[in-house]
Amino acid sequence: MVGVTINRVPLPQHNPDKLRVSTASEERIREARGREMEVIEVLHMNGGMGDTSYANNSLVQLKVITMTKPITEDAITKLYSSTLPKSLVIADLGCSSGPNTLFAVSELIKVVDQLRRKSGHDQSPEYQVFLNDLPGNDFNTIFKSLPSFQKKMSNQLGAGAGSCFFAGVPGSFYGRLFPSKTLHFVHSSYGVQWLSKVPEQVESNKGNIYMAKTSPPSVLRAYHAQFQRDFSMFLKCRAEELVLGGRMVLTILGRRSEDPSSKECCYIWELLAMVLNEMVSKGLIEEEKMDSFNIPQYTPSPSEVKFEVLKEGSFIIDYLEVSEVNWSINDTSEINSSYDQFCDGGYNVAKCMRAVAEPLLVSHFGDAIIEEVFSRYREILSDRISKESTCFFNVIVSLIKKEWS
Amino acid sequence: MVGVTINRVPLPQHNPDKLRVSTASEERIREARGREMEVIEVLHMNGGMGDTSYANNSLVQLKVITMTKPITEDAITKLYSSTLPKSLVIADLGCSSGPNTLFAVSELIKVVDQLRRKSGHDQSPEYQVFLNDLPGNDFNTIFKSLPSFQKKMSNQLGAGAGSCFFAGVPGSFYGRLFPSKTLHFVHSSYGVQWLSKVPEQVESNKGNIYMAKTSPPSVLRAYHAQFQRDFSMFLKCRAEELVLGGRMVLTILGRRSEDPSSKECCYIWELLAMVLNEMVSKGLIEEEKMDSFNIPQYTPSPSEVKFEVLKEGSFIIDYLEVSEVNWSINDTSEINSSYDQFCDGGYNVAKCMRAVAEPLLVSHFGDAIIEEVFSRYREILSDRISKESTCFFNVIVSLIKKEWS
Repeated sequence: MVGVTINRVPLPQHNPDKLRVSTASEERIREARGREMEVIEVLHMNGGMGDTSYANNSLVQLKVITMTKPITEDAITKLYSSTLPKSLVIADLGCSSGPNTLFAVSELIKVVDQLRRKSGHDQSPEYQVFLNDLPGNDFNTIFKSLPSFQKKMSNQLGAGAGSCFFAGVPGSFYGRLFPSKTLHFVHSSYGVQWLSKVPEQVESNKGNIYMAKTSPPSVLRAYHAQFQRDFSMFLKCRAEELVLGGRMVLTILGRRSEDPSSKECCYIWELLAMVLNEMVSKGLIEEEKMDSFNIPQYTPSPSEVKFEVLKEGSFIIDYLEVSEVNWSINDTSEINSSYDQFCDGGYNVAKCMRAVAEPLLVSHFGDAIIEEVFSRYREILSDRISKESTCFFNVIVSLIKKEWS
Repeated sequence: MVGVTINRVPLPQHNPDKLRVSTASEERIREARGREMEVIEVLHMNGGMGDTSYANNSLVQLKVITMTKPITEDAITKLYSSTLPKSLVIADLGCSSGPNTLFAVSELIKVVDQLRRKSGHDQSPEYQVFLNDLPGNDFNTIFKSLPSFQKKMSNQLGAGAGSCFFAGVPGSFYGRLFPSKTLHFVHSSYGVQWLSKVPEQVESNKGNIYMAKTSPPSVLRAYHAQFQRDFSMFLKCRAEELVLGGRMVLTILGRRSEDPSSKECCYIWELLAMVLNEMVSKGLIEEEKMDSFNIPQYTPSPSEVKFEVLKEGSFIIDYLEVSEVNWSINDTSEINSSYDQFCDGGYNVAKCMRAVAEPLLVSHFGDAIIEEVFSRYREILSDRISKESTCFFNVIVSLIKKEWS
């Protein structure tokens, strides 16, 4: 079943600008962009456990994992029931560092263990969990929290449950991460919207830092083309790594609309661009620096996701839907109570965005401007949240590795 | 074949002291020891890439890996030739963080790839490498170095070689780390001499921090008993994780002599104890603190290793030998030339010992005394190295998982 009706509107083909002699200024811009484009080295959520860490500012992401639980539960239930593996290998891609890192996979394991008990299987599978993120992710903090997590998990599961073995896998999921046919289940939440690099030929996106209403069509095309290349590579790699019948549930920050510059997905970055432009006008940021900064992200529509899955050909779509979540989570009652400790001390979307975007901004602009940027961003966000309904949109897709590929 | 003749001298049985009412002072000592005994949380080599890091002070360990290469190469050759696996899974246990971390496994992979070429197998295995150490190990630094390492490795191997996939596994090797029957080859160099905890009932080891000539027999027995428990658990866990016919090569800091308080293995710690005692006499360290500090290590003889392997029963001993390496490596010509960058800036055994022991000392004594400790230790070591021949002894054992267990 597919949760939404999809009318795919094909986007115009990418049409690269003709080659021409570049100015010195353009050279400098390209150089700056070249540095920024090493997404594998730059992109990571804020590490540690401090006030601006991702660990302490990822409630929206936790809410999203909780919202999509019925879909992941359905997928792992079907997988376990049809294969009854002796050893169940799960990978979480883009695991980040914080309470969410272990939350999603531990929920999956609990589901399997309940199924095992209900079905009267004495022999539990052993679980092997691979936590993946880019090499700059703070794996040390995850690893230090593992002994107590494993103890707690083992108590919760009780006697008879199989051991859980954890491993960290650093690397880009736009390449192979695991040997062939070794994974049973892949989960990724809020990872796949990150591109492998800033698209090329977006020099004309001046005054913007992402796709926006004022972006030239060539910029929108460049972003979309990069998403197509990246997502198709992602599917190809996972198809090689999953066993036949293996499953994958992806939650991607996306949009409902077919318009890639829709406010649905671009507004949060437009407000950050507004801050940066203000700071340019006050002489706090060089205009050239601002013009060469672009976020390596693409927030697809469900039809764009569906199109790439069908084109790549290794997976059946079991389920596809769009859901929305408010920018600002104040109501933590819906979130698993064991995570209440992470709701203390107030939460706001500026801190969440800082935990996500600070390393990208620091890498491009240096760290001197960061406090000022996020102080201004916080003000703008507070103002908008009080006046408008502001949501993130999630595209959730549940896939099955085709038996015959 | 077994490289040395072994005459095992059975040690007396462990005879615990009778229970008696403890004094307040003893309570405090136990409390201090209790804190220190959380080896899983405390023990790790110095992280990062700085002057006192393990990464920059582990030449002895690199030399040892290079010395034992013929034995590991022989083992992986026999493994590959007899099984020709599609996917070869290698674990390095106690991998630490530095150039040595990736050196040992990359040499193993090169050997397999040469074999594959020679034997005309077009299809290369894929390699999955698990790097294990305690959760306090600096995995972030390893992970950040992986992209460039993988690129270099791929260039060295050339076309046709299978992909290498790396994962970090935090946890104690005195428990299970991997699902059943999933490993082909286990390597561990200078890891297994570390105990899971400081032995119990070593309160009477006053003035010493390890087994020493002046240690009471009960202390020697307690250390030996802890080694027996730990090493036997190590073997049991690995036996479950290795496939039938899987292989394991362990290099353990040990001794040639049957005397557990032999100078061969204890001298390096006796000199550190001398420093700490000097500082006690000058009022820089509390006597009680000194008396409750003991190193969680046991440096076994080859016969002790053999005895535990035979007793545990899951492995055949293919090879066993003792070798020695000078404390102070000045001649780097024997070491792989690609590691020359790590030989710059001078090297001395005090820095090596600091990289290894600093976290243990800081955890027990606090960090205020550290500079003073290692300044004095450096002086004593320089003096002794200039006057005596000072060596570490390595027990190297190559094991095969029995087909029928």
